[in-house]
Amino acid sequence: MEITSETSPLLRTHGAVLPLRKTKAVQVGDIKIGGPDFSVIAGPCSIESYGQFLETAQGVKNSGAVLLRGGIWKMRTSAKAFQGLGSEALHFIRNVLDQTKMGLVTEVTDPRQIEVLDDYVAMYQVGARNMFNYALLKELGMSRKPIMLKRGFSALIEEWIKAAEYISLGGNEGIVLCERGIRTFETATRYTFDLNAVIFAKARTHYPVIVDPSHAVGIREFVPKVALAAAAVGADGVIVEVHPRPEEALSDGKQALTLEDFKILMKQIEGVLSALNHPLQKL
Amino acid sequence: MEITSETSPLLRTHGAVLPLRKTKAVQVGDIKIGGPDFSVIAGPCSIESYGQFLETAQGVKNSGAVLLRGGIWKMRTSAKAFQGLGSEALHFIRNVLDQTKMGLVTEVTDPRQIEVLDDYVAMYQVGARNMFNYALLKELGMSRKPIMLKRGFSALIEEWIKAAEYISLGGNEGIVLCERGIRTFETATRYTFDLNAVIFAKARTHYPVIVDPSHAVGIREFVPKVALAAAAVGADGVIVEVHPRPEEALSDGKQALTLEDFKILMKQIEGVLSALNHPLQKL
Amino acid sequence: MEITSETSPLLRTHGAVLPLRKTKAVQVGDIKIGGPDFSVIAGPCSIESYGQFLETAQGVKNSGAVLLRGGIWKMRTSAKAFQGLGSEALHFIRNVLDQTKMGLVTEVTDPRQIEVLDDYVAMYQVGARNMFNYALLKELGMSRKPIMLKRGFSALIEEWIKAAEYISLGGNEGIVLCERGIRTFETATRYTFDLNAVIFAKARTHYPVIVDPSHAVGIREFVPKVALAAAAVGADGVIVEVHPRPEEALSDGKQALTLEDFKILMKQIEGVLSALNHPLQKL
Amino acid sequence: MEITSETSPLLRTHGAVLPLRKTKAVQVGDIKIGGPDFSVIAGPCSIESYGQFLETAQGVKNSGAVLLRGGIWKMRTSAKAFQGLGSEALHFIRNVLDQTKMGLVTEVTDPRQIEVLDDYVAMYQVGARNMFNYALLKELGMSRKPIMLKRGFSALIEEWIKAAEYISLGGNEGIVLCERGIRTFETATRYTFDLNAVIFAKARTHYPVIVDPSHAVGIREFVPKVALAAAAVGADGVIVEVHPRPEEALSDGKQALTLEDFKILMKQIEGVLSALNHPLQKL
Repeated sequence: MEITSETSPLLRTHGAVLPLRKTKAVQVGDIKIGGPDFSVIAGPCSIESYGQFLETAQGVKNSGAVLLRGGIWKMRTSAKAFQGLGSEALHFIRNVLDQTKMGLVTEVTDPRQIEVLDDYVAMYQVGARNMFNYALLKELGMSRKPIMLKRGFSALIEEWIKAAEYISLGGNEGIVLCERGIRTFETATRYTFDLNAVIFAKARTHYPVIVDPSHAVGIREFVPKVALAAAAVGADGVIVEVHPRPEEALSDGKQALTLEDFKILMKQIEGVLSALNHPLQKL
Repeated sequence: MEITSETSPLLRTHGAVLPLRKTKAVQVGDIKIGGPDFSVIAGPCSIESYGQFLETAQGVKNSGAVLLRGGIWKMRTSAKAFQGLGSEALHFIRNVLDQTKMGLVTEVTDPRQIEVLDDYVAMYQVGARNMFNYALLKELGMSRKPIMLKRGFSALIEEWIKAAEYISLGGNEGIVLCERGIRTFETATRYTFDLNAVIFAKARTHYPVIVDPSHAVGIREFVPKVALAAAAVGADGVIVEVHPRPEEALSDGKQALTLEDFKILMKQIEGVLSALNHPLQKL
Repeated sequence: MEITSETSPLLRTHGAVLPLRKTKAVQVGDIKIGGPDFSVIAGPCSIESYGQFLETAQGVKNSGAVLLRGGIWKMRTSAKAFQGLGSEALHFIRNVLDQTKMGLVTEVTDPRQIEVLDDYVAMYQVGARNMFNYALLKELGMSRKPIMLKRGFSALIEEWIKAAEYISLGGNEGIVLCERGIRTFETATRYTFDLNAVIFAKARTHYPVIVDPSHAVGIREFVPKVALAAAAVGADGVIVEVHPRPEEALSDGKQALTLEDFKILMKQIEGVLSALNHPLQKL
Repeated sequence: MEITSETSPLLRTHGAVLPLRKTKAVQVGDIKIGGPDFSVIAGPCSIESYGQFLETAQGVKNSGAVLLRGGIWKMRTSAKAFQGLGSEALHFIRNVLDQTKMGLVTEVTDPRQIEVLDDYVAMYQVGARNMFNYALLKELGMSRKPIMLKRGFSALIEEWIKAAEYISLGGNEGIVLCERGIRTFETATRYTFDLNAVIFAKARTHYPVIVDPSHAVGIREFVPKVALAAAAVGADGVIVEVHPRPEEALSDGKQALTLEDFKILMKQIEGVLSALNHPLQKL
């Protein structure tokens, strides 16, 4: 079912013909992303308190998540909105990671945070709004921790791949691409999930490619469907927002799954993966 | 996993809060779209000759397609490009339909074609470029044949749903929605497949919703992945472009599957559907 | 200040390098569009009644408009919205045209309307939603009346130019392009006015290019600014929505200028044109 | 010609109704942006050498520019492309500024550059790709130098205005907005210049609003037209890329005006401004 780059000019991005590539797995703590298994990362949008973070961490672990997400510094459109707990949350974050023995994926928004965060993080996240923040990418190129690079919501696939080069040229080859929805004319959903980009990036780069279904659609009841589609097209994993009580969340509550939702979703994902002989990664 | 329209303002399109709806199946010849089964429609972009159409029809039928697609009048960006065979093809089309006992889905591009086509067609297709052609929609509202209404490549979901009302207000309730990719800033793929819209339209309207993976991504090797995603999210079917020799196709060859590709795809679709307890419709 | 197509790959649209072209004027009744003068077309969105149409026509004529616009069949997103008066308005339209001695520009939405309209129309308008309605364009190619072809709100400049070929290949060379805003992610204004497209089409085609500032921004107070920009970049004219009492308009009232607004705008346009030695066309 | 926020729901951005506002001028060195005069900023995309920068500075000053632009650290899609001279250029930049007695507008791409740049800069520029880099904006909020905030190429007008709050909440009220084109489906021009956003931001914020016609269209021959449109709609100024020999430029040569082009443009701008009683600022 293969076509070569010669037969399809559409496999070019602006100028460069991209070859078919095999995914190189990325080690994240004890976990491998992009290897034979499908990896599920889950956790709250923002880390809000010790109790909320611990409850979420234990819940998603019990349902099968292999890495924990949670925002410490948040990127918010309004300077007056909740900006995350910041470094004061670090002491209890360590406690939660120790109790659950899970690695943390968290967003870094300023090159000067890296020094502080480095002891706590299994994988750094570059958020969509910072994909073009090349100063940050260069700094992360000098880190030895892997980087999850979210696609900017208006970045061409080509620009996304080239942003990854800002990291790899610094010597850091541990890069995981994450599609999280793009901005289009459609406003019925928060963003437009670009499934094509997942397929394209998976086929034409050697980076693992995961999907953030929570931002990609932005409506809780639709999040599981997007996650299933990611499994169906051969993505390497998903990163899902989960909150014990979404209606009380300080950010993105409308798109957070409950712990119960998440448990159901894990079973559905396992079903679809199994139909495609793709194993689900376990801790 | 349900949220109500009260808790999510995102379930509004511009102004109207849309309720959760149950799909009403649409009868298309001997087939039901939007019932318990997943329906696969396949065939060439354009009907080019008796031989090409017959070979494709027999091939896709053998692999499990339940309806035949094939363009008679084509919408082409350039007035100088191949415009389809037009009415001169009708005599051999009848012959192919009789031999294969399949129903035909074909695009109508002018209200004045309906009279000519009516004896040949199981379901009319309104193409993406005609979704806003309300004169055509009104005319089809007076037909007794079902209509597959493709989403305009820049139509809001809300406009798509309202376009369907131009048909239903005329008395024709046999409407099947088809998502086929939208136009965004991304150019690496032909269009951006809007998976979110499939999920949204399925949840918030009573129309069956199918996916055209061929136009939605526009690159042969990626078409099967998009079709699998459609199956994974609970779409009611797919409509796929297939050509015995895509490299010789007079239109859209780059996105046509070969008969062999299509056969493999049908098995993969069946696998994913089965994981989700969704039966594949058989003739 | 010229660059050649050799030095700038950006002057290509997909594939074709477009040469610099000189505008060929189009005769519309007694008026020339695309000649040395800048032409102002004005009138209501919809023709609502004899009184409303006559009052608007006399008002815009007194302020300097050279052609009259007014919709008879309207393209509305909702099938339940006001669809225009249709052919029943034709008798009083003739009366207004005779009294004011102005030519009418009106939209044709169905190939079967042409026969009815032909005696009333100085120039046919193809609306944005019908730019891809090639059946309609082919029919208009056989008319001897000039055609104002609005750009589809999601049409590439290249597709707009190629749509014009559907008309010219039929033998009708009287084509005026009209930019009226495109659909983008921005929602603060109704559409995004694509000024670049005006400049591009003017430089790279031989068609006169005019601007519809009313749809392009969709907010009354901003409409005059867009019209001034059109004058500043060398467009061949503007087509402006005017209503004696916008708050009572049956369609598009939010973007209609009052007769008083329009009078002020005409003076500002004349000022900008005069700074650029571009005469304003008078009846 | 005024409509109030009550009569037009379109004057809302997502949620907030924005009031009509009067522009507050911003002092930039000896110059005022947003006062009664129209300000022209010009200079090279990148500062490439002492000779190139001096020649450009003297040229644009002679034609009437009141501030100098020039990039020291460049934001480039590819990590392998020319990244600007960086801090090694600072010594000769001082020399050029002293000779020409002009203030410098230059982009800051990393919060850690501010300390180094502060002695050289009359106004900091935040580039389009950093509009969402809130860490950088917060840092600039603590500076006493004014900030030119370019609109992200996919930022809603509302997000652009809210990004400015990240600066003003830090205590820095010297903010100048700059529209430089947005990313849309259209590819014939580099970006789509959003003239509507200029008009909207001018009417609904108190910030001065200027236009970058060079990036907004990206094609040298079309840049002057965009600049004239900015003058016609009442923008507070333009920032234009000029290079003595564009074909030798290390970045953005295709959109740079020659010194001769720029001289002609200044005269055209003065003509349009004079028709609208808007004075051109002089040094």
